[in-house]
Amino acid sequence: MLIGAIEAGGTKFVCAVGYQNGDIVEKITIPTREPNVTLPEADRFFSSFKISKMGIGSFGPVHVDRKSTRYGEILETPKQSWRGVNMVRHFTNSQDVPVHLDTDVNASALGEYVWGAGKGKDSCLYITVGTGIGAGFVKDGLSLNGRLHPEMGHIPVERHEEDSFEGCCPYHGNCLEGLASGTAIRERYGREGKHLSDSNEVWEMEAFYLAQAVASYLYVLCPDIVIIGGGVPKQKTLLPLVRKKAAERINGYVNPGDFKEWIVSPALNDEQGIKGAMALAIEGKR
Amino acid sequence: MLIGAIEAGGTKFVCAVGYQNGDIVEKITIPTREPNVTLPEADRFFSSFKISKMGIGSFGPVHVDRKSTRYGEILETPKQSWRGVNMVRHFTNSQDVPVHLDTDVNASALGEYVWGAGKGKDSCLYITVGTGIGAGFVKDGLSLNGRLHPEMGHIPVERHEEDSFEGCCPYHGNCLEGLASGTAIRERYGREGKHLSDSNEVWEMEAFYLAQAVASYLYVLCPDIVIIGGGVPKQKTLLPLVRKKAAERINGYVNPGDFKEWIVSPALNDEQGIKGAMALAIEGKR
Ligand SMILES: Nc1ncnc2c1ncn2[C@@H]1O[C@H](COP(=O)(O)OP(=O)(O)O)[C@@H](O)[C@H]1O
Ligand SMILES: Nc1ncnc2c1ncn2[C@@H]1O[C@H](COP(=O)(O)OP(=O)(O)O)[C@@H](O)[C@H]1O
Ligand SMILES: [Zn+2]
Ligand SMILES: [Zn+2]
Repeated sequence: MLIGAIEAGGTKFVCAVGYQNGDIVEKITIPTREPNVTLPEADRFFSSFKISKMGIGSFGPVHVDRKSTRYGEILETPKQSWRGVNMVRHFTNSQDVPVHLDTDVNASALGEYVWGAGKGKDSCLYITVGTGIGAGFVKDGLSLNGRLHPEMGHIPVERHEEDSFEGCCPYHGNCLEGLASGTAIRERYGREGKHLSDSNEVWEMEAFYLAQAVASYLYVLCPDIVIIGGGVPKQKTLLPLVRKKAAERINGYVNPGDFKEWIVSPALNDEQGIKGAMALAIEGKR
Repeated sequence: MLIGAIEAGGTKFVCAVGYQNGDIVEKITIPTREPNVTLPEADRFFSSFKISKMGIGSFGPVHVDRKSTRYGEILETPKQSWRGVNMVRHFTNSQDVPVHLDTDVNASALGEYVWGAGKGKDSCLYITVGTGIGAGFVKDGLSLNGRLHPEMGHIPVERHEEDSFEGCCPYHGNCLEGLASGTAIRERYGREGKHLSDSNEVWEMEAFYLAQAVASYLYVLCPDIVIIGGGVPKQKTLLPLVRKKAAERINGYVNPGDFKEWIVSPALNDEQGIKGAMALAIEGKR
């Protein structure tokens, strides 16, 4: 029994088919163009297989409330032509299978929860620090979704005393994403993070902000494991600094255990998104 | 069929019996002394009634994971003699009924969700701003609990530019509780909040911090309604200011609807805790 999965991003769609155990049989990547180009392209891929269900981890904002008649509908994205597109409806019709959709970060959290670093835990938080910042949370196999799921990246944070950068979030300026995303690093220092490896103060400041995020999510969600993925943490010095500063900040108020085992890198090598979409199809419940 | 309920606080225990519909038949308040004094006193009250189950909203930190063998056990509280006391075990034995326990704020959230301002909503956040700050969240009738439930009051916040108070949280200094609890107000201004009604800047700053909390909780939990209770919001000017500043801060990034209907006062007149404990007994599932 094959399962279909899509990791629908702003620049590319990853489409895959695989087995219940998470093994991927075939996978393609197509660029995200207009919906009337990209969706049929995805359909052509899936048509060569006999799939029984489908899961989608989608860019957003997107309607994720399964009880809503608008479940699966893309909302006010800057990608104008995608507004109002409903991928659940599209693929339910075109592939004639049940389709389940969640946000991309919730799918990643689910992928790591089922087959990756979060395997065996009751709950798992996945944070991605890339162009923007987002996070997804899975508990007992289900993601935490409200009517909308705003993805946690925009929480307020305490400013670092040496930070004079006003922040790059178009909505909030100095929220977490505004001060700690890859975009914020580039705008603050005039260079991409990957060219700043030797500047300790960059990663000290970055860790200062991410540690606050970890603390906030801990106090609200109490995840059993925190997985930090995305481009920015490819900087090898970052995660140990986040662990250290998170431990200092939390200061024994709660004890999530050994910080080395509690704050970790993803285990699925950039496949958490697409595998999470497969898991979504399989779990297929809320 | 009568239900037993306890709102177990650091200074007083409220004990009540009532019906499935939330009506309270009888209620007493006893001071919180040593456990070997207070627990038998509670038992004497309940012994006069034929109760079929019991719910407890407890001060903390307390083990709230129903799967744990330590479910119901009080942890490192400053009230030394209560450490290690397990109220679930105690009342299960003494009253011979099923007992369910949650944190006091989760119980309050549940009370408002079932019979108060959150009635009919899918999810409901209850924030209490008193001596400390705590919050509880209920979704689809269940509270959100991890292994521990640290109660959300200690999230990091951006400092107000005119605030030079270092913060009063013994763990974190300038966390939300450290900067915005009733204790923080008293230490910052040298007077209790209720004597500062005429100082606009006090409530502007208080609302600045609480609006951040509302934004953080929105981004992480997406509650359908936010109920702000406790002593400090008795200050009538506060809630409208929180609404205004929360709307400004969120800045259209997500739209929780009309802020007047989304951020509200409790509807149960200081009975949300004890009624929530009744609801805990009734729902009795997780
Ligand atoms: N080794 C690195 N060190 C620091 N930053 C990096 C590194 N590699 C990539 N980045 C940053 O990560 C961001 C891209 O994140 P990524 O998660 O790959 O993409 P996206 O968020 O767009 O999906 C960019 O801002 C880039 O500068
Ligand atoms: N009208 C008021 N205006 C401002 N603060 C108030 C008012 N009434 C009570 N408070 C403050 O609320 C706090 C007590 O909160 P409360 O929720 O009643 O108790 P607790 O948190 O200890 O259970 C104290 O700091 C007190 O100064
Ligand atoms: Zn933002
Ligand atoms: Zn604190």
